[in-house]
Amino acid sequence: MSFLTSLFGRKTSAPIARDRLQILLAHERAGEGQSELISKLQEEILEVIKRHISVDQDKVQIKMDRGAGVSMLEIDIEVPEATKPAAKAD
Amino acid sequence: MSFLTSLFGRKTSAPIARDRLQILLAHERAGEGQSELISKLQEEILEVIKRHISVDQDKVQIKMDRGAGVSMLEIDIEVPEATKPAAKAD
Repeated sequence: MSFLTSLFGRKTSAPIARDRLQILLAHERAGEGQSELISKLQEEILEVIKRHISVDQDKVQIKMDRGAGVSMLEIDIEVPEATKPAAKAD
Repeated sequence: MSFLTSLFGRKTSAPIARDRLQILLAHERAGEGQSELISKLQEEILEVIKRHISVDQDKVQIKMDRGAGVSMLEIDIEVPEATKPAAKAD
């Protein structure tokens, strides 16, 4: 899991321990077209996440990189402490 | 982008060039609880994707890894050629 640690671990600035949710999307295109798929998914995936955790818009970082053959989207969310439910035994 | 190439490029078996959509979710937990967030998101994110591309269930690979402090989900989708719309000029 070290590749993820290095990939995802570079943006933490606050010394306080917080939960983070990070999403990486990559769309590899063999041919032409559909380069906008990732941008379509971005908003809807954020909506899905907001159904489960309360997201402070200031704590969301979005980075998009559209290459010729690969489009990538990185979403980094700092999860507010208050939205974490108590640990359940299920 | 070479880290993603190596991270994501290991499952291609077909010699035919195809589109692929790959999603990586990582939930870093500072404290206890909410280890099930990633599994909750899995189904709903797949629903979002299916709204935009037709997904053959056989072409979806899902891998989940729940560690003590980090839960990870990897979704790998091979996009059928037929679902790719013609390139538009928008």
